[in-house]
Amino acid sequence: MSRLSRKGLKEDLAAEQSEDRHDRMEEACGVFGIFAPGEDLFRLSCFALFALQHRGQESAGIAVSDGKTIHLKKGVGLVSEVFTDLEAMKNKPTVAAVSHVRYSTSGGSRPENAQPLLIEYRHGSLAVVHNGNLINALELREFLEDRGSIFQTTTDSELVAHLIARYGYRDLEASLTSALPHLRGAYNFLFLAENSLVGVRDPYGIHPLSLGKWKGHYVLASETCAFDTIGAEMIRDIEPGEMVIIDENGLTSKQALPSQRLALCVFEYIYFARPDSNIHGKNVHLVRKELGRRLAREHPAQADLVTGVPDSSLSAASGFAEELGIPYEMGMIKNKYIGRTFIQPNQKIRSLGVQLKLNPIYKVVEGKSVVVVDDSIVRGTTSQKLVNMFFRAGAREVHLRISSPPVISPCYYGIYTPTYEELIGSSRAVEEIREQIGATSLGYLGYQNMIESAGLTESELCTACFSGHYPISSKGRENYDEIRRL
Amino acid sequence: MSRLSRKGLKEDLAAEQSEDRHDRMEEACGVFGIFAPGEDLFRLSCFALFALQHRGQESAGIAVSDGKTIHLKKGVGLVSEVFTDLEAMKNKPTVAAVSHVRYSTSGGSRPENAQPLLIEYRHGSLAVVHNGNLINALELREFLEDRGSIFQTTTDSELVAHLIARYGYRDLEASLTSALPHLRGAYNFLFLAENSLVGVRDPYGIHPLSLGKWKGHYVLASETCAFDTIGAEMIRDIEPGEMVIIDENGLTSKQALPSQRLALCVFEYIYFARPDSNIHGKNVHLVRKELGRRLAREHPAQADLVTGVPDSSLSAASGFAEELGIPYEMGMIKNKYIGRTFIQPNQKIRSLGVQLKLNPIYKVVEGKSVVVVDDSIVRGTTSQKLVNMFFRAGAREVHLRISSPPVISPCYYGIYTPTYEELIGSSRAVEEIREQIGATSLGYLGYQNMIESAGLTESELCTACFSGHYPISSKGRENYDEIRRL
Amino acid sequence: MSRLSRKGLKEDLAAEQSEDRHDRMEEACGVFGIFAPGEDLFRLSCFALFALQHRGQESAGIAVSDGKTIHLKKGVGLVSEVFTDLEAMKNKPTVAAVSHVRYSTSGGSRPENAQPLLIEYRHGSLAVVHNGNLINALELREFLEDRGSIFQTTTDSELVAHLIARYGYRDLEASLTSALPHLRGAYNFLFLAENSLVGVRDPYGIHPLSLGKWKGHYVLASETCAFDTIGAEMIRDIEPGEMVIIDENGLTSKQALPSQRLALCVFEYIYFARPDSNIHGKNVHLVRKELGRRLAREHPAQADLVTGVPDSSLSAASGFAEELGIPYEMGMIKNKYIGRTFIQPNQKIRSLGVQLKLNPIYKVVEGKSVVVVDDSIVRGTTSQKLVNMFFRAGAREVHLRISSPPVISPCYYGIYTPTYEELIGSSRAVEEIREQIGATSLGYLGYQNMIESAGLTESELCTACFSGHYPISSKGRENYDEIRRL
Amino acid sequence: MSRLSRKGLKEDLAAEQSEDRHDRMEEACGVFGIFAPGEDLFRLSCFALFALQHRGQESAGIAVSDGKTIHLKKGVGLVSEVFTDLEAMKNKPTVAAVSHVRYSTSGGSRPENAQPLLIEYRHGSLAVVHNGNLINALELREFLEDRGSIFQTTTDSELVAHLIARYGYRDLEASLTSALPHLRGAYNFLFLAENSLVGVRDPYGIHPLSLGKWKGHYVLASETCAFDTIGAEMIRDIEPGEMVIIDENGLTSKQALPSQRLALCVFEYIYFARPDSNIHGKNVHLVRKELGRRLAREHPAQADLVTGVPDSSLSAASGFAEELGIPYEMGMIKNKYIGRTFIQPNQKIRSLGVQLKLNPIYKVVEGKSVVVVDDSIVRGTTSQKLVNMFFRAGAREVHLRISSPPVISPCYYGIYTPTYEELIGSSRAVEEIREQIGATSLGYLGYQNMIESAGLTESELCTACFSGHYPISSKGRENYDEIRRL
Repeated sequence: MSRLSRKGLKEDLAAEQSEDRHDRMEEACGVFGIFAPGEDLFRLSCFALFALQHRGQESAGIAVSDGKTIHLKKGVGLVSEVFTDLEAMKNKPTVAAVSHVRYSTSGGSRPENAQPLLIEYRHGSLAVVHNGNLINALELREFLEDRGSIFQTTTDSELVAHLIARYGYRDLEASLTSALPHLRGAYNFLFLAENSLVGVRDPYGIHPLSLGKWKGHYVLASETCAFDTIGAEMIRDIEPGEMVIIDENGLTSKQALPSQRLALCVFEYIYFARPDSNIHGKNVHLVRKELGRRLAREHPAQADLVTGVPDSSLSAASGFAEELGIPYEMGMIKNKYIGRTFIQPNQKIRSLGVQLKLNPIYKVVEGKSVVVVDDSIVRGTTSQKLVNMFFRAGAREVHLRISSPPVISPCYYGIYTPTYEELIGSSRAVEEIREQIGATSLGYLGYQNMIESAGLTESELCTACFSGHYPISSKGRENYDEIRRL
Repeated sequence: MSRLSRKGLKEDLAAEQSEDRHDRMEEACGVFGIFAPGEDLFRLSCFALFALQHRGQESAGIAVSDGKTIHLKKGVGLVSEVFTDLEAMKNKPTVAAVSHVRYSTSGGSRPENAQPLLIEYRHGSLAVVHNGNLINALELREFLEDRGSIFQTTTDSELVAHLIARYGYRDLEASLTSALPHLRGAYNFLFLAENSLVGVRDPYGIHPLSLGKWKGHYVLASETCAFDTIGAEMIRDIEPGEMVIIDENGLTSKQALPSQRLALCVFEYIYFARPDSNIHGKNVHLVRKELGRRLAREHPAQADLVTGVPDSSLSAASGFAEELGIPYEMGMIKNKYIGRTFIQPNQKIRSLGVQLKLNPIYKVVEGKSVVVVDDSIVRGTTSQKLVNMFFRAGAREVHLRISSPPVISPCYYGIYTPTYEELIGSSRAVEEIREQIGATSLGYLGYQNMIESAGLTESELCTACFSGHYPISSKGRENYDEIRRL
Repeated sequence: MSRLSRKGLKEDLAAEQSEDRHDRMEEACGVFGIFAPGEDLFRLSCFALFALQHRGQESAGIAVSDGKTIHLKKGVGLVSEVFTDLEAMKNKPTVAAVSHVRYSTSGGSRPENAQPLLIEYRHGSLAVVHNGNLINALELREFLEDRGSIFQTTTDSELVAHLIARYGYRDLEASLTSALPHLRGAYNFLFLAENSLVGVRDPYGIHPLSLGKWKGHYVLASETCAFDTIGAEMIRDIEPGEMVIIDENGLTSKQALPSQRLALCVFEYIYFARPDSNIHGKNVHLVRKELGRRLAREHPAQADLVTGVPDSSLSAASGFAEELGIPYEMGMIKNKYIGRTFIQPNQKIRSLGVQLKLNPIYKVVEGKSVVVVDDSIVRGTTSQKLVNMFFRAGAREVHLRISSPPVISPCYYGIYTPTYEELIGSSRAVEEIREQIGATSLGYLGYQNMIESAGLTESELCTACFSGHYPISSKGRENYDEIRRL
Repeated sequence: MSRLSRKGLKEDLAAEQSEDRHDRMEEACGVFGIFAPGEDLFRLSCFALFALQHRGQESAGIAVSDGKTIHLKKGVGLVSEVFTDLEAMKNKPTVAAVSHVRYSTSGGSRPENAQPLLIEYRHGSLAVVHNGNLINALELREFLEDRGSIFQTTTDSELVAHLIARYGYRDLEASLTSALPHLRGAYNFLFLAENSLVGVRDPYGIHPLSLGKWKGHYVLASETCAFDTIGAEMIRDIEPGEMVIIDENGLTSKQALPSQRLALCVFEYIYFARPDSNIHGKNVHLVRKELGRRLAREHPAQADLVTGVPDSSLSAASGFAEELGIPYEMGMIKNKYIGRTFIQPNQKIRSLGVQLKLNPIYKVVEGKSVVVVDDSIVRGTTSQKLVNMFFRAGAREVHLRISSPPVISPCYYGIYTPTYEELIGSSRAVEEIREQIGATSLGYLGYQNMIESAGLTESELCTACFSGHYPISSKGRENYDEIRRL
């Protein structure tokens, strides 16, 4: 019970948040909610999760209310692995549902962090899902622990559930209204009570959350591609700080928290979101094409062909090619069956050039001067392998073009990024990076061009990882007085 | 959020507690704890759980502290199914461990109720296991919910964890000392903190909990058969109301709660415990033999042979036979490979006499007058089948002898029993029961003889299911004033 | 393709046959067959396999004919693990079925050896199961390979299927009649064709095979306990060399091979069979009691109590006790949940006395002079541990009594035994063995007493492992001329 | 044993061959072989199978010889599901390996058909893998059955193994040379003996088989993308009718069967092969671009953009766009996480427009005249849904362009196609098809243009599905006289 043990936990939590796992910016989680009494909500949620699977592959879960009880099914694995049998819920009545996909960590996964989180409290049952990251999670947790709370997970969902239970108003809305001011960070929360569905988006709207309609019923999803998949119609984005309460009386909206501005994560456009999703009115694919076009104008190249790193950079690559009138080519194939295998090339084999995931088309690049468009450089190791792969395939020149500026600062809002030291863009000049990577030339998209591609103003975007300007202060300013009385 | 939904939960909890699943009294859970820095505690705990597996087959779990962090592995299934790979913990340092087997429900199992429960609170991590049942669980839960607690399971372990966290003294011992007076019911709790192991037994000592020593280190277990299995030595039983704190300074004992008397569950001797376990100085097998001997004196029979229903009634049957000088015979075989199969005879096949689990030895019983000794009659349906089976095997007479009195009252202390209405002993005379069952004669052991067989005084035993006298008042008398200030 | 590679296989096969795995004689396989059009044969077969599970735990399989096609389900594991869903065959028509449990090897299991073997040949489909062992399997295999046969398993079933297909008469019976004279060894074969079931027992009847009736339909099983389990009635044992053909016309019996004598494996009575089975009119439990009685007369002991090693030696122990009038006691408990766990005590823990499987009841044996009855000594290591365990539990004297003579010769007829060198009985005198084992005294049942216990004449039994007299010559005498023309 | 039962099998086999499962032409299987003593062949084979996974997702298997014994691991599922642990083979010596991925059937999979097939015969062990289809399989099977062969699978590999064993020469090469003339159809076979690897391609070379080199060792693979993945170098294609024997003496090639001409399956270029593979010197992606270019010239369209159906039609679409100077757009997203889920939209949900697999990018196609390029039309139902999807997404016009001619004849060479009746191209005029599909316009690539795109002459291709001209006569012409003597 020493301080040491306590420190153990905090360090563990911190480690989990900053853990440097992949040489990619990586998204945390996707959420989906629906209020549609009498429909096959288990199945529908499952389909929506399929559409959001790119936002998280570690675990998946669905909670469905039958009006009296909330039924939960969740597990570690892909949606197709967790939900192998939909018959369990077959003939049960249904009212509403929330569901979740969780980001896939490479190493140990914590099964207890799988969502939805289902709790019982004084007013019944509550299922919670979220994506994003509270930056004052540790403070809140300490505060709650000091007041006698116990924690079984390290999720923000559990934090919020505690606040709701402690405020304890009969109306979930009232408790939430009291609890939300204590949260600092990026978040979308969906709450499922026995007979209602509530969604809330942080006051900066860091991550997307959209409202749609399916057969006259309301649905909420991290990305609009989930709407297309189930045949729902997009209505609008949830506003920063907005809370929507959906129940048998329809939808009620209120501004739960004052919002100074939208600060939408620009990386959603650059990398995370699916190309067929629309965020705040902009189609992701089209934004990426524009990123590519501007990149081409900023860093043109004399080359025989332009190719993109599949799948995330194909849009930008086609924009780049169009802009310069250079042929856009499929220069590289991605093996879609890899992904989650536990069989890794050992060092001996790796050194012989095993390339499981990506393979250039030799006949396309042989003897050619190639522009390779990628979406970002994080630590630089992947880029180096990539360039190397093209040279080994016979490319004469490899002009690497990055459809975003150098990443110089870590993200605290739900994206996994390396630390400052590991971010190659934070400490080295472009020429140094080019040299290390081995590319013939290297060009990053300019900051201003990135902003303009998205069609939003700088003030409507969170560009912290490129600019170091964080929309949400990292210093705590919460008034804990009120909560202290809990 | 209506009252309805809340009722849903309460009913669910109540249903879970009274659920009538089998025509046997059925035990809930076994616990094991060890404080032995540097030893392979994961493996040792696993072996101990094997020895306790008869106390619960639904789920199994082990929590091991390495001095800073508590590592947890648990799952639904037998010990051998949950712990298929012990290598995970292989080279990790270890300090102490708690582990658990949970009673196997026939229908849906709740994976979230698997133990140990691992929580984080203001003073670090805590793993909790328990067996038994708090009779004021619902009241406590409502009380805690009204103070803003959230619940993720329906276990008593979570209730106690909340109380500990709310008291929140730096010393776990202090918090426990404050929390324990609020608990009413039968329980053994083991708590694992980063550097200590704490065990506590309810003030009536309803279920057994023993202290042993292994290589100079302290161990705690529901039954002493776990000590034999790992090569540990029995020291003594934990006293009613006693709390033992085991850490690097050795063992400290304190009387955490005043105890008026031991009220040990007499059914532990009759049916639950393993014959090789010793409880409060009495060997289970020998007590059962004595039950049989007294049964023989009370209800002798003129018969060719005596046989027991395997495995639980063999000891009593041999005592019965010895007393009367009638040959003790293996008259029935139990298939040890059944147990957990999901393949059940359908009605059509059942009616043809499929008997998967038990089979009389025809050549032994043919033409014979047989005494069949069983440990108890709950609803009577099993006894009827049993008698029928022996007659079909050719027995001339089937004298059923029960090594306990009629079960007339349900148990609220952690044993699954049918309701009053279903307890055949609560509403019918012995002759009526005999007639329904179809036995040639029927004899129950007398109440006083049962008491004397165990070698304890009546006041040292809980005999509620036979007498209707419950040692712990079912009415709440807790002073919630103090806790109210939490 | 060198001789070497060929040798590789032969050695492999030989190794598999002589492999010394456990310090027990171990049985190979159980079979079950039923011809009952329109019944739920999948389910019934499953129940029968449960009853035969003690004869093999490695794999299980069921083949059911619907009159046109034979459907097969088999896999590695216990019956309850392989058959988790019986609904697959739910509404399909059924005519007949054969099923099988295979002996559990400790190390690598060969999934391709799981039975039934299902083949297609010129006259349709054929499912084959067997138990026992052909001693000329390698010769037959070489012969068939030299004629161009390919093999996918190392089972005798595949050998016989090849012979049937090569003879190729339209009538399975005719092909079998031609093929059987080529087989030398111990075997029971069941064949399932689309519309018939055929069973055949080797001319010495080494292993049991019984005929029963269920609802007017014929059934065949390795042991009669399978009949009891499904509610079938025993009719008679299949005779040595008898072939029974069961189809819509009922049962036809023919003497497929001349039989000089029955040479029933005496170890079936001593150890393999279930106590509730009857073999050639003798109940296994009663034979074991008689073994114990004669053992008591031959090697009495002055002792306080008699106990048996569970489960196989309990019958003999009770006979021993009855004979001498010494109390028969439950002196030892067997953990029924062990069995197939992969978690083994490592050396360090083992040395501390972990005893997972068997545990003496200390209070029963403390300070006592104990007779421990076991069924056999194979290598002696188990006996040593056993004796040690009783002394550690406080026994004053441990008199080990073995209900069979010393095992001096290996078995070639389907039982796994160590080699001559490893059989402690083949090279050492009884006193030497006693000394090594550490028992106070040691007594083996005499050969003649063993014979007489079974109630059969010496010439009706195979006692090769005790006498070295093998009923079936190990030298080949087959006339391969006819088969050569195949 | 009636004719009926026999017919049952034949019908079953026939059904399996003609089964109409998907509205796509579907490929059967991929093979890989390597002879590289001392290397980690299990791991390498695994990586190669990952690269070939698109050729079959039902089952996967690897057989590795250690010089004396062949070790086999295979199972139902994806490569990543079957090979979860490569450590089993870790420190074993290795000489050579063959491996296989099998085409995924939608419904019941036959686990016993998983490859490699491992058999023992007179000269040792043999592992066999194949892709393609023997059109005289039933005749051969009947012939062999009439000679006394038994079959345990319905694979061509087992047929060939029987022939090899029956010829039975000490040299595998000699047996194969005798056996091969009996085979009629499309095939690539790889054989693994203890110390050699043999590959053979049918005399028309219907399916691709390439030879490569890895660290000085020879490798064989269905597609060159497997070479890139493991870092091997392409050497050349195996010639039609060529047999290569690879052992410690290096590679020996012989013309095992006379070949009149190459008749390479044109569908390998159109649809099956991975774009980064090269077949007979032509890169698949580049051939597809050329198909698109010629399609554009043949059936131009006035449109705002060109898009392809992912993933197989993207190459052709880009060629089409380039040719006409119309923008090539990503107009549709394919969900890469679907694939093998068992959760299907039920009729009710399907009718609401659930589109799990493909989703148009609404913002890209809204109000636009769109050219959609697809690779083929089989039954037409998929095309109809596709066109519908684009219109629902707001497209003004949907011009469907198919980069191959109408499919008018079924394939008998290892590709799953519907029957004549179901092939929409075999019975309807293009305008009728367009009408049914609902496209604004429809254009198929002309036959001659298809031929010329591939860069091979018509006589070097198998175009049977487009022309009805089958290179291999469907009538039997084998001389069975020789084989009859087997």
